[in-house]
Amino acid sequence: MFEFKIIKKDKKTKIRAGVFTTPHGIIKTPMYVPVGTQASVKALTPNDLKEIGVQIFFSNTYHLHLRPGEKLINKFGGLGKFMGWNGPTMTDSGGYQIFSLGDRLEEKNPERTKLIKITNDGVKFWSHLDGSTHFFSPEDSIRIQHDLGADLIVAFDECLSYFLTEKEVEKVLPRIHNWEKRSLDYHKKHSKGKQFLYGVIQGAAFKRLRKISTDYITSLDFDGIAIGGVANAGESKKAIYDVINWVIPDLPEEKPRHLLGVGEVDDIFEIIERGIDTFDCVIPTRLGRTGFIFVSPKEGNLKNRFRIDIQKAKWASSKLPLDQNCNCYVCQNFTRAYVHHLFRTRELLAYRLASYHNVYFVINLSKKIRESILKDKFNVMKKEWLV
Amino acid sequence: MFEFKIIKKDKKTKIRAGVFTTPHGIIKTPMYVPVGTQASVKALTPNDLKEIGVQIFFSNTYHLHLRPGEKLINKFGGLGKFMGWNGPTMTDSGGYQIFSLGDRLEEKNPERTKLIKITNDGVKFWSHLDGSTHFFSPEDSIRIQHDLGADLIVAFDECLSYFLTEKEVEKVLPRIHNWEKRSLDYHKKHSKGKQFLYGVIQGAAFKRLRKISTDYITSLDFDGIAIGGVANAGESKKAIYDVINWVIPDLPEEKPRHLLGVGEVDDIFEIIERGIDTFDCVIPTRLGRTGFIFVSPKEGNLKNRFRIDIQKAKWASSKLPLDQNCNCYVCQNFTRAYVHHLFRTRELLAYRLASYHNVYFVINLSKKIRESILKDKFNVMKKEWLV
Repeated sequence: MFEFKIIKKDKKTKIRAGVFTTPHGIIKTPMYVPVGTQASVKALTPNDLKEIGVQIFFSNTYHLHLRPGEKLINKFGGLGKFMGWNGPTMTDSGGYQIFSLGDRLEEKNPERTKLIKITNDGVKFWSHLDGSTHFFSPEDSIRIQHDLGADLIVAFDECLSYFLTEKEVEKVLPRIHNWEKRSLDYHKKHSKGKQFLYGVIQGAAFKRLRKISTDYITSLDFDGIAIGGVANAGESKKAIYDVINWVIPDLPEEKPRHLLGVGEVDDIFEIIERGIDTFDCVIPTRLGRTGFIFVSPKEGNLKNRFRIDIQKAKWASSKLPLDQNCNCYVCQNFTRAYVHHLFRTRELLAYRLASYHNVYFVINLSKKIRESILKDKFNVMKKEWLV
Repeated sequence: MFEFKIIKKDKKTKIRAGVFTTPHGIIKTPMYVPVGTQASVKALTPNDLKEIGVQIFFSNTYHLHLRPGEKLINKFGGLGKFMGWNGPTMTDSGGYQIFSLGDRLEEKNPERTKLIKITNDGVKFWSHLDGSTHFFSPEDSIRIQHDLGADLIVAFDECLSYFLTEKEVEKVLPRIHNWEKRSLDYHKKHSKGKQFLYGVIQGAAFKRLRKISTDYITSLDFDGIAIGGVANAGESKKAIYDVINWVIPDLPEEKPRHLLGVGEVDDIFEIIERGIDTFDCVIPTRLGRTGFIFVSPKEGNLKNRFRIDIQKAKWASSKLPLDQNCNCYVCQNFTRAYVHHLFRTRELLAYRLASYHNVYFVINLSKKIRESILKDKFNVMKKEWLV
């Protein structure tokens, strides 16, 4: 039902290109996985996603559990059917949102009372929507993900603050590992073989702990390996790449590798070069909705982070497409002036067109990188982009 | 360049079906004209509009003058080209927005100072965006509409409050007529024959004044005839139909007739029956954005005004399409449960899907009514819908 096949490996680097077969279709790796938090990829329809070339998208268990609930989605045949998408899907464990939204709620809370209670059994948390209390154990997370029915699912873990010391992280790591083991045990017992479970390597920015976590997670019978907790607040790009460098050499070659929550343009080259197969990221849609548009070289470069701010007055009468080298529907049909006008007047079409282009941009970049790998031209392409 | 041909007339009623040829394409009348106030039909792309079967859409001169400005749009080749739409377009004169937004601003203004100053020459008004002052004379309105370059344009008039007495309306009617005459004169002098100008019949809800206005407007050399000021606040449906009944018999048969700002489902039957060829209305998109979805008989009827409120809890797990007799993309691909979820979570896709369906619904209804006219079955269809 699932098969991950590496079709090309680079001799000098860790780069690889593969074909990942899932019950709902094929993912040609390396590939970007756009995020549709609440069962919709921000203003885009499943038809758009197909037209863009999206092969799989990512949705958030925390949000779907709160609304509309996994039972309802299950009644409709799972996440994909519920939203009219017949390709592969992926869900996370809910852990990241529980901890990151919990942190944000605590900041807003004048008494700064703890809004998350962690025990060895799991996490009690307050809904960011209505303050209702919920509890996730590892078993709950996997049960919910079974109900949601995505092809690729993720073990329940804890998202660690980057303000923790090495000692503090070392102390909680066994609990995280225990949760992941319980996720796997529950999955083995209840899965009908239709879902593919990723274990997650944690350990914050500490090499020793990342190594311990890698040893433990790879010792278990997970289907795939995810690397978590690298895109958290306070993390530098170097630290992201360091973590991958530490972890990758000890991973089994045959298992697909997913990097959670990373995907700026330069990151994409760096993480693929280090052996990542898939990665999800909200940046393309989130930036798009605030008027930041991805552009390719020469206009785009490391300094401007491959983006223009379409709301700037300088684009008010520009006849250029959003990106001068892009073949997407938006770039073929609209000018910067028009999209600028839509943002200035807050027309809904603005957010739709910007999301469409930005997702296309990253999907297309991933595809081109894959082609460059197949032709042994990755380094050439990387140099063209990251001058 | 323009040709309006009546291809079918009913013997007993005023109903007619026609083919209206414009420089940018054909409009098969009777036909609904959706509204894209700020050069975008609420979350829909020109591709969507084509897929839906939209033949022409309507945009507002007041809004386009303020943002992005007619000069900019003209530089891009006109309204259609600016937004990537190659079919016919229509603009209004700006009069309606100046007066209706002015009224609203006055209501919010604690001192209730007049925010509109009318002289014989034109109207001074304050922008609803930033309070900057602007002035529109009839000549300004037509000059701006020439710059915007829509196929169909409208003479500058004044939108009368329904709280005015017959005497008050009688007093201002000559000024309105003078503005329209000036609009026509300016148009004749400066138009390059690429735009089609409608005169507007006013006169509030007073039969005598509507007759006077009809006599005057039809005495001038306008290309088409519009009926204005019928959908204003305080107006009952009967009053709308009365105005059309008074006006239509005195209109020249050969000129196309546009009704400004009317288009609920029952209205569509009633106004077409009375001899209207085209009508614009924001209701389908505005209702859509607030979760009101058009449904056809039997579920839809006069009592529920052919709408369901998709945000109601009863639709949370409904596997029905939005409308059970609709062939649009949304109804073929999504359930009420999913669209309900999108509205509840305020996902942008909600507004897009609802706008798409509602515009399709009214376009498709207009097409079916036209077919029924061609087959002498209008009455049968009307009875099926308005039981």
